[in-house]
Amino acid sequence: MTTYTIFGTGNMGTAISGVLSKGGASTDNLSHGEATTATIEGEVVILAVPYPAVDEIITRHREALAGKTVIDITNPLNFDTFDELVVPAGSSAAAEIQGKLPDSTVLKAFNTTFAATLNSGKTGDLTTTVLVAGDDEAAKSALITDINAGGLDALDAGSLKRAHELEALGFLQLTLAGAEKISWSGGFGLVK
Amino acid sequence: MTTYTIFGTGNMGTAISGVLSKGGASTDNLSHGEATTATIEGEVVILAVPYPAVDEIITRHREALAGKTVIDITNPLNFDTFDELVVPAGSSAAAEIQGKLPDSTVLKAFNTTFAATLNSGKTGDLTTTVLVAGDDEAAKSALITDINAGGLDALDAGSLKRAHELEALGFLQLTLAGAEKISWSGGFGLVK
Repeated sequence: MTTYTIFGTGNMGTAISGVLSKGGASTDNLSHGEATTATIEGEVVILAVPYPAVDEIITRHREALAGKTVIDITNPLNFDTFDELVVPAGSSAAAEIQGKLPDSTVLKAFNTTFAATLNSGKTGDLTTTVLVAGDDEAAKSALITDINAGGLDALDAGSLKRAHELEALGFLQLTLAGAEKISWSGGFGLVK
Repeated sequence: MTTYTIFGTGNMGTAISGVLSKGGASTDNLSHGEATTATIEGEVVILAVPYPAVDEIITRHREALAGKTVIDITNPLNFDTFDELVVPAGSSAAAEIQGKLPDSTVLKAFNTTFAATLNSGKTGDLTTTVLVAGDDEAAKSALITDINAGGLDALDAGSLKRAHELEALGFLQLTLAGAEKISWSGGFGLVK
């Protein structure tokens, strides 16, 4: 049984906690108020906070995060313009975080699935698929196993470089929902 | 009835021609041998050729393409590495083509839908959705109407800047199919 510490008690943090605990994992969600003072007890850490809130957390907990898997779920949008990302062109939030946490194993996951599709397990009639990218095969495999145990599909989408494409997909999906062209319970489902 | 000149007689050129002609449009596909010598008769031109083949076509036909809608369907992958795009970071094939054809109206479309999903009209149980990006609302609207007439869904995915995200999505989908994690008749379907 994996133990997860999840920074964030919003829609996404709660939905991810729901999936993983349904699969038998132990999860602990930390609120904004707890984020800076808490001791990290989980083997795996999930950053389920907006991208601008990540920096303070990883700066504060850098030593505790060393040696752990750190899962980045962010879509680093410029929410003022809804027209660009705030990470350098060609890079990704996940790559930026990995650069700041060289002793941690960073994975990208959960950024292409709206909270409602995690809660229901469905994207339309399709089982929701969580896309996972990262350079550590064992860490990806462990996360995929825990997501599958929670009743969702999960797919290894490649190396951490692919976080750029996952964030582009997440960005596109957010713009479509923001423009009411799709609903917040829809989005891109994966047909194998 | 729109008339389309489609450069390309491969899987994608044929599938696109099939969708549009099913909807009542007139389509003419030009083979590689015809690409340089042909006269462009269509009101709308579709570049259904690999990205490296685009340059010669648009150089040769620049004057004939002026004033027309030009639809770019390419995924500008480095097919040697399958790990990166060959356009500058943050840009897109569509933006590069628009830069070289300032007097044409460039749209991005059809790069996120495998040929099989255009032929069948289905991505799994979902109606296949063609994502269209571009800066000219009338040109997008006309293309969407013609795709709808052919029995597929089509969605305005935003400005030509969003071609970057559509190409990232196309790239990701190609890597998943190339790694046999999804089939060439599957991919990302859009749930509204």
